[in-house]
Amino acid sequence: MNCEIIAVGTEILLGDILNTNAQYLSQELSALGISIYHQCVVGDNEDRLKDAIKLAFNRADIIILTGGLGPTEDDITKESVAETLGVKLVFHQESYDKIVEHFKNRYMSPTNKKQAYVLDGGLVLQNNNGTAPGCLYDNGEKIVVVLPGPPYEMGPMFEESVKPYLMKKCGGIIKSKFVRVFGIGESNAEYMLKDIIDTQTNPTIAPYAKKTEACFRVTAKADSTEQADALIFETVNKIRSKLGSAVYGEDEDSLQSVIVDLLKKNNLKISIAESCTAGLIASKIGEVSGASEVFCESYVTYSNEAKHKNLDVSEKTLNDFGAVSSQTAIEMANGVKKVSGADIGLSVTGISGPTGGTDEKPLGLTYIGVSYNDVSRAYKFIFKGDRNKNRELAACNALNIARLTILGKDVENDLH
Amino acid sequence: MNCEIIAVGTEILLGDILNTNAQYLSQELSALGISIYHQCVVGDNEDRLKDAIKLAFNRADIIILTGGLGPTEDDITKESVAETLGVKLVFHQESYDKIVEHFKNRYMSPTNKKQAYVLDGGLVLQNNNGTAPGCLYDNGEKIVVVLPGPPYEMGPMFEESVKPYLMKKCGGIIKSKFVRVFGIGESNAEYMLKDIIDTQTNPTIAPYAKKTEACFRVTAKADSTEQADALIFETVNKIRSKLGSAVYGEDEDSLQSVIVDLLKKNNLKISIAESCTAGLIASKIGEVSGASEVFCESYVTYSNEAKHKNLDVSEKTLNDFGAVSSQTAIEMANGVKKVSGADIGLSVTGISGPTGGTDEKPLGLTYIGVSYNDVSRAYKFIFKGDRNKNRELAACNALNIARLTILGKDVENDLH
Repeated sequence: MNCEIIAVGTEILLGDILNTNAQYLSQELSALGISIYHQCVVGDNEDRLKDAIKLAFNRADIIILTGGLGPTEDDITKESVAETLGVKLVFHQESYDKIVEHFKNRYMSPTNKKQAYVLDGGLVLQNNNGTAPGCLYDNGEKIVVVLPGPPYEMGPMFEESVKPYLMKKCGGIIKSKFVRVFGIGESNAEYMLKDIIDTQTNPTIAPYAKKTEACFRVTAKADSTEQADALIFETVNKIRSKLGSAVYGEDEDSLQSVIVDLLKKNNLKISIAESCTAGLIASKIGEVSGASEVFCESYVTYSNEAKHKNLDVSEKTLNDFGAVSSQTAIEMANGVKKVSGADIGLSVTGISGPTGGTDEKPLGLTYIGVSYNDVSRAYKFIFKGDRNKNRELAACNALNIARLTILGKDVENDLH
Repeated sequence: MNCEIIAVGTEILLGDILNTNAQYLSQELSALGISIYHQCVVGDNEDRLKDAIKLAFNRADIIILTGGLGPTEDDITKESVAETLGVKLVFHQESYDKIVEHFKNRYMSPTNKKQAYVLDGGLVLQNNNGTAPGCLYDNGEKIVVVLPGPPYEMGPMFEESVKPYLMKKCGGIIKSKFVRVFGIGESNAEYMLKDIIDTQTNPTIAPYAKKTEACFRVTAKADSTEQADALIFETVNKIRSKLGSAVYGEDEDSLQSVIVDLLKKNNLKISIAESCTAGLIASKIGEVSGASEVFCESYVTYSNEAKHKNLDVSEKTLNDFGAVSSQTAIEMANGVKKVSGADIGLSVTGISGPTGGTDEKPLGLTYIGVSYNDVSRAYKFIFKGDRNKNRELAACNALNIARLTILGKDVENDLH
C-alpha cells in the first residue's frame, strides 16, 4: 500500500510555517510498512486543492490531508474532498455538541458550526485537542483521511484513530537502525559497502548524508519485532566487519556520548586544551548528561602566553615550532593532563581561517594531540572548509581520536 | 510569476529529515514577490521524478528542485531534468577540478565524477560548501533551477546565484533587513510593535521565530536600492525606538559577533569561566573571525576543586553557598578576570539537568556573573528547557549581559 500526504495551507507556501506534519506522518506510515511516494502542499485555493486530490486519488491507495478544517471561509478541505469524491457533507450532532462545550462561557462564532459537518458514510475522528473533528473515508479501494492542521491536534488524532485502522489493514512489522560512521567519507563508505547494499533486499541499507560523518539506515520488514531485530543485527554486523572501528555508534549515539560512556566504563577522566576550537570540544562533551563525572576542567588557550602559563608549553617549543605544530599539540595534551590530574589529555591547535595561513602553514592546518598512558602523539589534518566547518571538523576528529586511543585502535588519519 | 518547489529524496518521504529547504525557499521567493502554488516531494525514483517535473513545467513559471545531486546511483535529479527538458548533460571541467581539489590527499570515489556534469546551455551555480554544482536553465519562458539537498549548501547557493538572477527577472527592487532582538520574547516583542506591524504596508514587518531570540524581517519594495534602503532605515529606527537596547544587531549579526566588535572598538579583552555551559560561550566567541584579538583564554571548571584551583573561588563560598549561587558566579567572574589579566570576566554556573535539581535549587537555575571596572554582579535565571536548551539559553544570556554591561545599559532580567 502507498500513501500520499497533502498539506493544505497558504501559510506553508509562504514559508511562515514548516510542514512538520508531513514528516510526522511519513515516519509513522513508514513504520507501518506503508510507502509514501508523494508529499505535496497546496494553498487555500479550491481549484488547486481539488486537482491535488484528484491526482492523489489516481496514484495512491491512501490519501491523508492535513489542514483547512478551521471555521473560516478559507478552510475548504472537507468541502473539496466531498466534491471530488462525490460524497455529501452531513451534520454530526456529537461533534457539534463538543464544539459548543468547547466554547462554553465564551463567544462562539456562527461559522464554527461548519466544523461539525463530516463526510457522509465516513468515520468521524474525534479531536481531543481542538474543535475540528477529522474524517476517514474508506470505499474499499481507496482510503481518504482528513486531519486538522495544528500538529498537537493532528498527531494525537492520527495516533488514536488512524494508526489502529491502518495497522489492521497492513499486518507485519518494520524496524530500522542507524549505523554511525566517522573517519570515512560517505561515498567512500558506500563504496566499501557496495556489495551488501546492492544485494540486500531485506533489510535494506540506505546512506544518510550528515555534515561531518556518514550514516546508514538498516530497515527490516518481518512478521514480528524479534524477527526484525534478528535481521537487523545480522546486517549491522556485516557493516561493522567491513568498516571496522570507523563505526562508532548506533541510532542516537554521538561521538561525545560514546566518549563519555567509554570514559565512564573505563573509570577515566579527560581534560581538554583548545586553541582554534575555543571550547567547542569541551562544550560537546558538556552536552552529554553525566559528563561532569568524567570531565573536571578544560582550558581555552588562544595566546602563546596562555599556552605557556596554563599548560606549561615551553617557550622554546612555541618559538622553534610555532603555536600550530605537532610539538605544541603534544605539549598542550601533556600539560592539560598534568595540571588537571586527568587520565587523558586532548588538545587542538590550528589555523581555522579565514586569515592567518601561510605557504608553509596553510589555512585549515590543524594538529590534534593526545596524551594517555605515557604515550603522547599528534595527528596532522588539513581541513578545507570555512572557519566554522574547520572548527567543527577539528572538534569531531579530536573526539574520534580520543575514542580510538582509549579503544587501543589505530587512528586513520586521512587528512580531510 | 509563480514557482513550484520540488524536493527530491526518499529520506524526506521516510520522514527521516524535515523538508526545511521548502520553507527557506518559500520565504525567500515570497520576499521577491514570487508566488508559490505548489511544494512537492518525490523520492529517488526516476519515473515519479520525471512526472513531477513535467507536471510542474505545465503549471509553474519557475521550478526549483533540491536534492539528488550526490555521487551515488540514487542521485538522479540532473539526469531526470535533462531528459524531461530534452537537454544534454555536459562535462564541466571547472566543477570537476573543484571536486578533485576537494578530495586532495584523500580517496575520491570514481562516482564523484558524475557530479561535474551540468545542463547544456544552462548556468553553472558554484557550490562553495560542497562538491555538487547547481544548474539554472532558462529557456526564455520557464526557468528550471537544480540545487543540492544539504541546507548549508543549498541556502548559500540560492543566495549567491539564484536570488540575484530572479531579482533581475522580477523588475523593481525588493530589499530586506533582519532586526535581531534578545531578551524580549517573540510574542512580547510583537505586541510592542503591533501598531507599526498592523499599519505598515511598505516596508512590511514580519516576525521570524528563532530558537533563543526574536527576529523581524523588514521588507521594502522600491524602484531603486537607495529608495528601498531609505524605507528600511526609517522603519528599523521605529523598531529600535520601541524595543531599545533589546535590539542587538541586524542581518548576519549574532550576539557573539556583536560582542567581539564591541570589545575591539573599546580595546577590551574578555575571559570566560564556565561550569554548566562547559565551553559553549567560549566556542561561540571563537566562531567570530578575529576573536583571538579580544579573547586570550578561558576556563571550563566543572568541579569545585577546579573552581578553587583555577579561578580562586574561595572554599568557604563553595561550602556556604554552593557551586550554583550568585556568590560563586561573582567569584568566578572576578577570578577569571584576575588570572587572565582581561578587562571583563564573565561566568556561568547552573544546573542544566536532567538531574541535580532540588526544591531550593531547581533544574534550570543559573547564575551569570560579570566583573568589569570594579563592579561585580550576578544575574539569576531559571530556564525551563532540557539540558541543552538550558545551556544554550545560559550562553546567549551571558553574551547579552556582557554586551549590555559594556554598553552601560540595564540588564532586563525577566527569568526565562
